[in-house]
Amino acid sequence: MSSFPVPLLFFFFSSLFVSSVLSDQAAFSSHLLPRPLILEQTQLSQFDADELTLQCTSWRVAGEANNLNPWKTIPDECLEYVRGYVNGKGYLVDLQRVADEAVAYAKGLQLQGDGKDVWVFDIDETLLSNLPYYKDHGYGAEVFNPVDFDMWVDKATAPALEASLKLYQQLLDMGFKIILLTGRSEAQRAVTDQNLRSAGFQSWDRLILRATEDHGKLAATYKSEKRDEMLEAGYRILGNSGDQWSDLLGWPMSTRSFKLPNPMYYIS
Amino acid sequence: MSSFPVPLLFFFFSSLFVSSVLSDQAAFSSHLLPRPLILEQTQLSQFDADELTLQCTSWRVAGEANNLNPWKTIPDECLEYVRGYVNGKGYLVDLQRVADEAVAYAKGLQLQGDGKDVWVFDIDETLLSNLPYYKDHGYGAEVFNPVDFDMWVDKATAPALEASLKLYQQLLDMGFKIILLTGRSEAQRAVTDQNLRSAGFQSWDRLILRATEDHGKLAATYKSEKRDEMLEAGYRILGNSGDQWSDLLGWPMSTRSFKLPNPMYYIS
Repeated sequence: MSSFPVPLLFFFFSSLFVSSVLSDQAAFSSHLLPRPLILEQTQLSQFDADELTLQCTSWRVAGEANNLNPWKTIPDECLEYVRGYVNGKGYLVDLQRVADEAVAYAKGLQLQGDGKDVWVFDIDETLLSNLPYYKDHGYGAEVFNPVDFDMWVDKATAPALEASLKLYQQLLDMGFKIILLTGRSEAQRAVTDQNLRSAGFQSWDRLILRATEDHGKLAATYKSEKRDEMLEAGYRILGNSGDQWSDLLGWPMSTRSFKLPNPMYYIS
Repeated sequence: MSSFPVPLLFFFFSSLFVSSVLSDQAAFSSHLLPRPLILEQTQLSQFDADELTLQCTSWRVAGEANNLNPWKTIPDECLEYVRGYVNGKGYLVDLQRVADEAVAYAKGLQLQGDGKDVWVFDIDETLLSNLPYYKDHGYGAEVFNPVDFDMWVDKATAPALEASLKLYQQLLDMGFKIILLTGRSEAQRAVTDQNLRSAGFQSWDRLILRATEDHGKLAATYKSEKRDEMLEAGYRILGNSGDQWSDLLGWPMSTRSFKLPNPMYYIS
């Protein structure tokens, strides 16, 4: 995707962007790819609150359905919308629904009980919530700063996503082996272990973090390779929960995948 | 999935369903699997309009993200929500956004120009809209009736989804080969061809319908097999647009897939 002819795209999209966005070159260049917000070639100020909610909901749903091209920041126009969503009931209801659907699916499975029935979990925004960090960093409106984020990770104070914690315990009780597969670095193993335990996740089969040789890989590539290693080791990946499509897509895939909501950031 | 222990699941879910739903055995049994609407164990009548919108939006988003277990009808509680969505601006905005993201992606590709650069389209709710039919059949609240639906198909009067028609033309102009891959039967080839042309779709490379041997297959299996045949024939599947996840998932997958919104029905 890095070979995209950006100048041509810029020309193409210029007719789709409202002038207030176009004039903000800093915001524009912060996008990996320009994302038209489809504001129908009129001024943002002409939209009332309901219309902006509709547009931002549409943007959020497109992200959840994996329809959006790669993006680096949320649309400026949707900052208040995202703030409201992640701090409000909508996010909690969505998280609970995904967990409930996962439980319903899991209960319908016949586990073989040989210790090879696996459920894979991502960690950030899947088991642990970094919302306290993102509250201080614009809910995804600021370009991701890995140095700042690693300082936050080192605190090991990210709370559990409650719906996921309950799902996690239910899956353990059903007999699933849990494998944690995260984009975090091997250097963050100790703080990640500490944070998971203090947040209530007490037991897992393996915690896989990025080794040195994994650091240059796309998340989807790294995670697919790790899933392939699980199959090679005789595991059956029956469920996979993640907040990014790069947690879920790629060969091999889990029998069922569950996409947790995340309107704040995108990882390829 | 047909081996699900339904009585056990029923027992499990009974605590999650509101009593008004539980008492409606006809509606309950119409689900392939029970889908808890997560109404927090209280009466539906206690929810005001905002809360019901939030719950039904959450259900719709979960569907778009492929998180829902298989379902046969929409939740009764969400009938008015779905009616409002598909007849209102939300559906049009969502359809336009998916088309715009597809165009942005397509414009960034370097086509080889050898006639093997392919975009695959599903037909129903992807190119053609059956909304006139579903308006007369409860927007997915009624169990699908294949006899009635085939009578509607035979009329060949389904209108184009305008955003898809424009995308389609742009992809043709860029040099893509278009392959139409539908779950409709080979017996419906003539009316499908006629309907597509009258709705404005004038040119395609191939129209693939279910042959006799495909009729017992899940849509995801049938469509994956057909994509595999395309690869065998030397085609590169660069884009795939469909309103069902069974249009998009399975091996091989397109380089990029685009999930059009559809809150009315689910096809495995």
